[in-house]
Amino acid sequence: MRARDLGIEIGRHSTGPLNAITDVPGVNVGYATVGGVTAEGERSTVNTGVTVILPHDDVWTEPVFAGAHRLNGSGEMTGLEWVREAGELTSPIALTNTHSLGLVRDALVKEQVNRRGPGPYWCLPVVAETYDGVLNDINGHHVTERHVAEALRTASADLPAEGNVGGGTGMICHQFKGGSGTSSRVIDTAEGRYTVGVFVQANHGRRERLSINGVPVGRRISAEVIPTPEVPRGFEPGSGSIVVVVATDAPFLPHQCSRLAQRAALGVGRMGGAGEQYSGDLMLAFSTGNRGIPPYLWDERTDVEPATIGLSMIAPQLMTSFFDLVIDATEEAILNCLVSATTLTGPTGTTAHAIDHELLMTAMNA
Amino acid sequence: MRARDLGIEIGRHSTGPLNAITDVPGVNVGYATVGGVTAEGERSTVNTGVTVILPHDDVWTEPVFAGAHRLNGSGEMTGLEWVREAGELTSPIALTNTHSLGLVRDALVKEQVNRRGPGPYWCLPVVAETYDGVLNDINGHHVTERHVAEALRTASADLPAEGNVGGGTGMICHQFKGGSGTSSRVIDTAEGRYTVGVFVQANHGRRERLSINGVPVGRRISAEVIPTPEVPRGFEPGSGSIVVVVATDAPFLPHQCSRLAQRAALGVGRMGGAGEQYSGDLMLAFSTGNRGIPPYLWDERTDVEPATIGLSMIAPQLMTSFFDLVIDATEEAILNCLVSATTLTGPTGTTAHAIDHELLMTAMNA
Amino acid sequence: MRARDLGIEIGRHSTGPLNAITDVPGVNVGYATVGGVTAEGERSTVNTGVTVILPHDDVWTEPVFAGAHRLNGSGEMTGLEWVREAGELTSPIALTNTHSLGLVRDALVKEQVNRRGPGPYWCLPVVAETYDGVLNDINGHHVTERHVAEALRTASADLPAEGNVGGGTGMICHQFKGGSGTSSRVIDTAEGRYTVGVFVQANHGRRERLSINGVPVGRRISAEVIPTPEVPRGFEPGSGSIVVVVATDAPFLPHQCSRLAQRAALGVGRMGGAGEQYSGDLMLAFSTGNRGIPPYLWDERTDVEPATIGLSMIAPQLMTSFFDLVIDATEEAILNCLVSATTLTGPTGTTAHAIDHELLMTAMNA
Amino acid sequence: MRARDLGIEIGRHSTGPLNAITDVPGVNVGYATVGGVTAEGERSTVNTGVTVILPHDDVWTEPVFAGAHRLNGSGEMTGLEWVREAGELTSPIALTNTHSLGLVRDALVKEQVNRRGPGPYWCLPVVAETYDGVLNDINGHHVTERHVAEALRTASADLPAEGNVGGGTGMICHQFKGGSGTSSRVIDTAEGRYTVGVFVQANHGRRERLSINGVPVGRRISAEVIPTPEVPRGFEPGSGSIVVVVATDAPFLPHQCSRLAQRAALGVGRMGGAGEQYSGDLMLAFSTGNRGIPPYLWDERTDVEPATIGLSMIAPQLMTSFFDLVIDATEEAILNCLVSATTLTGPTGTTAHAIDHELLMTAMNA
Repeated sequence: MRARDLGIEIGRHSTGPLNAITDVPGVNVGYATVGGVTAEGERSTVNTGVTVILPHDDVWTEPVFAGAHRLNGSGEMTGLEWVREAGELTSPIALTNTHSLGLVRDALVKEQVNRRGPGPYWCLPVVAETYDGVLNDINGHHVTERHVAEALRTASADLPAEGNVGGGTGMICHQFKGGSGTSSRVIDTAEGRYTVGVFVQANHGRRERLSINGVPVGRRISAEVIPTPEVPRGFEPGSGSIVVVVATDAPFLPHQCSRLAQRAALGVGRMGGAGEQYSGDLMLAFSTGNRGIPPYLWDERTDVEPATIGLSMIAPQLMTSFFDLVIDATEEAILNCLVSATTLTGPTGTTAHAIDHELLMTAMNA
Repeated sequence: MRARDLGIEIGRHSTGPLNAITDVPGVNVGYATVGGVTAEGERSTVNTGVTVILPHDDVWTEPVFAGAHRLNGSGEMTGLEWVREAGELTSPIALTNTHSLGLVRDALVKEQVNRRGPGPYWCLPVVAETYDGVLNDINGHHVTERHVAEALRTASADLPAEGNVGGGTGMICHQFKGGSGTSSRVIDTAEGRYTVGVFVQANHGRRERLSINGVPVGRRISAEVIPTPEVPRGFEPGSGSIVVVVATDAPFLPHQCSRLAQRAALGVGRMGGAGEQYSGDLMLAFSTGNRGIPPYLWDERTDVEPATIGLSMIAPQLMTSFFDLVIDATEEAILNCLVSATTLTGPTGTTAHAIDHELLMTAMNA
Repeated sequence: MRARDLGIEIGRHSTGPLNAITDVPGVNVGYATVGGVTAEGERSTVNTGVTVILPHDDVWTEPVFAGAHRLNGSGEMTGLEWVREAGELTSPIALTNTHSLGLVRDALVKEQVNRRGPGPYWCLPVVAETYDGVLNDINGHHVTERHVAEALRTASADLPAEGNVGGGTGMICHQFKGGSGTSSRVIDTAEGRYTVGVFVQANHGRRERLSINGVPVGRRISAEVIPTPEVPRGFEPGSGSIVVVVATDAPFLPHQCSRLAQRAALGVGRMGGAGEQYSGDLMLAFSTGNRGIPPYLWDERTDVEPATIGLSMIAPQLMTSFFDLVIDATEEAILNCLVSATTLTGPTGTTAHAIDHELLMTAMNA
Repeated sequence: MRARDLGIEIGRHSTGPLNAITDVPGVNVGYATVGGVTAEGERSTVNTGVTVILPHDDVWTEPVFAGAHRLNGSGEMTGLEWVREAGELTSPIALTNTHSLGLVRDALVKEQVNRRGPGPYWCLPVVAETYDGVLNDINGHHVTERHVAEALRTASADLPAEGNVGGGTGMICHQFKGGSGTSSRVIDTAEGRYTVGVFVQANHGRRERLSINGVPVGRRISAEVIPTPEVPRGFEPGSGSIVVVVATDAPFLPHQCSRLAQRAALGVGRMGGAGEQYSGDLMLAFSTGNRGIPPYLWDERTDVEPATIGLSMIAPQLMTSFFDLVIDATEEAILNCLVSATTLTGPTGTTAHAIDHELLMTAMNA
């Protein structure tokens, strides 16, 4: 069940066929969900996982242009210094829980080494995290290298599952059950159709500020009707994080990718996120529209490389249209995450309730 | 007439007594409006001006902490390199039209020289601009040093006029008549009440994206009912700019001011701004909560200055609350600008229509 | 007289034919020197001017890619927000004194309006400054629009004059007489020769830290031998600024231009600059290697513009070589400025002594 | 053996008693060296380790202010988003090899959890890396959690070992043997003495550009006299990284820490570093001069926290002096690393030769 199944659409632009980041040609998404199974009313100890997003089938040797934006920095995304410096994404993007980030990062290094074979080169993978310690035994470190391999192996161009899946398994979003979500938009230009896809791992926000298409549904669904998860002592509501990944096959240069990334932050803000103090709201945008970017660091092919690389970039006159698409798709990806997620009770008994679809629609139409 | 006179309130937090940036103790606002008078249905050639915002009564010798954020960079704000480097605002902030920015900047330098007297020091004033060339004979350069002096001389802590006034005289906002607007919020803490004030010079946005409190009023007030201003050839709708100034008496450090400034960008986004390609959406936030910051550059007092300066900063646990206040006050400042502005026809016959209050309320309640 | 006439060379890479920024094809430099004439031992009141650097013959309608870096921000460079956002330089670069920056900025706007004709568009020119108030009657505002026009009109691809000329007329550099300076380097690649040119307006630095090719000449030429300029009360030695402009015909993307700009900061540091507290050390790098970038804002041609623009970029494997060229050329440009400058006594009697060539060579060989 | 034992001093400012980062009161350094033992002329497979730098004895619960600078981004430093957002360093700093960074990062998380006990909070430790895969079996992942614990346990305020030790064991610097190095400077102010300490893990640079106190020793010690390490196929000389950590007890605000960090980059540049394309030259500066900053995230004490925190900052007039200290100490830390390191032959037979002290002094005095 997704937002459009409920009749909710964000903005007026068309979606891609799947309404997902995988509408961007070449982009694959894979998951390993660890635990996450819970019987109604019972506690579940392990609720975590790994998500991977691959820009194309060999980002390991052929980088894509990328840029980033920070709405708030209480979070981690490795690999950002190279993204900012060189404008290159040189690895799949992985998303997991906060305390397993290092393991997932090193596992991507090992995967890269396995693929390339021995040799003197290094890897700086992009791995981001959101904190699932309210609903998951995070310090049990249940994510292993095997899960990273599983997410990579199962990655596909299909419609990705949403809600309690992969790195998004144990998320809480606007004090409802959160998780993974995705959406896409297309634009037709004189040179053909381009797609913008957005993927979120949403673990942020307060209920009181949640609005959907401008409707303050958060205020209309009171904690009496759907309880908010217990706020741990010392926490403030809204602590958490949202990671947004923007993908497009339109040819954007690195500095333009950063501009797209900031528009994803506007989408977060429109749904009610405020870049809260203890939220790691980090946005990464990449473009597959320029292929043939030389491999990061060492490669046999470097002998025959030319002095310059041919590229293209989207005309400035189209930028605003793309900004609109990113904003809208970000909002709808968060919404899809909320609509798809299912109620989960964590190891300490805290329950994050899914947003009830009937109550949601009542609130939307009130 | 302001938004609250129509019954529209943004958010749930209390405003200051004036609901204006001048609620922040010590903050003064002054205007010089140049032209701007138009008989119903007649063209007006000169519609421009200068706005000044003074953090306290002697920012000329005592800087305040400040930070900035760029939502989109098709605009100018001088003085930003020192704001970013040192975290200091060392001059009044002036707002004017794009092509008079240099004159206003040099006029502030001269004012500083007049005040300090001769001596080897320099000034790097903060002056920002938005483009009024659709409604004003901008290349006639009608702003003069005299207007800067007038704005400084008339600056006061009163409720500032809104709409077609000062630097905001010839603005177009979301394809309605725009201009100057302001709002404020207060927060009570264990150490007393703090105020956040926001001032905007709003000249940005497309009507189709305008939403107020989440209500898509822009779509509900069609161009058949209230015509949109003619879009000049080569322009795209939404070209323009919004400058947002955030003031507070809560003690924020420079890097925290930058964080406040980014939240003002979220407020712009929530109203429908997308940081359009040809919009200069620049945000500056300053805090008067730390006084006694040594003068910029030369001053007699430097002989007796200590090695360190005593300061305070807002506790991290309060940051999110301040973020909320900035977002809400930014939205309401834009809204006040729209509600206060009056229809204006520029020298080439283009008319920017004010948003009709009855139609607005009908749209809000539809 | 330039550094190489004295036998001093920086680094091992070849210079272009002129050893100047004008070695970059299409780049022109023009000056208007205001005053600056002084009889031996007499005071001169007016010592200032304007320098313009044009990337190619019509930057007014065809931008070039650019990026910037701030080593220290006690200075002004207008237009940076658009450079950072869009990666585009849309105007000639002008350099002048601190208190005339606004006038020069507005004069470039007027020039643009004169060229384009009427129409609804705006200009955001890049104008930078350094402070000549120690050697010039800066508050007399002796720079006028006429000087800007003169600098533009006289701009050429010849070897630019160095030392006391244009915006650099009244500069003090490492407590010797400073001013304008330039240098260039070339690199041969599989696709032909590229040139990197650097231009500085140097008004920064302390003598004690000045080193040339690593030789601490500043310490070796004592104030007893060549007096240092009187330090105004309240000043600290080293207050001032250096503006560095890097030009190249190699095709760099905007984010790569920013990387070049930071290497210019390393060159400043190698000569002894520390990014002093009251120094505005701002670096701008532009590349003419990608032509055909659409005009900023409005233009008749926008109707026929395609969705994408074809570009090229320098291969990553060549970046380090270009970094070396920028560092070396920056050092030599500062050195050329020092060697070319001539002793000047300002309106209050302060004298900035040129570095004596014999003493310099003695210090180099000590 | 350190640089001053050879008679080489950088700059004219006094060092602290140890001439080390541990001169900053409260700062401790600990190492775990993994392998690194090599008999003359024999290959050594494992040459890596972990270094930790602790700002004070309980950074786990009491953050310190910090800021960062990127000279070049081909490297990783986790935790930077929070440093940049909040200006807080909330963990010890760990340095290790590139492919073990994730493990070390998660180990610090576990250490934090062990110290704080159970509870819903997260950790975002700062871990940086340089690549030792030329001299170490990096893909054997020989660093374990035990080594992190060892480095933490053995951390002390003593003079840290330099050269082939801890994370710096397998480094190559300017094509000599590199490693760990440190230096310090003190400054006396009206309010007492402050110390600036610098620690480097240096694995960057080309020999041809190495200069010490301006003397081009790199060119004077030819590869015939001391062979340069074999450059792996596909590598360019100078690939590698340098991580610089700047510590001070002078009270700097976060944005001021970032300014200090950029001056460390100037120090790298003065020794001959160019921020090479494949070098991760990342600088972090922290200040212990403000204590009492509230704990990151959750803590029992949050109930009684005030609305504001009292702080102090260094007066602007002292900034340039501190910049000088950072530049000089960075140069000397790199130099100490070079002088202390000992020749090492890695698993594939590549040898990185230590700089011979006699040859060095001959080159210095040539």
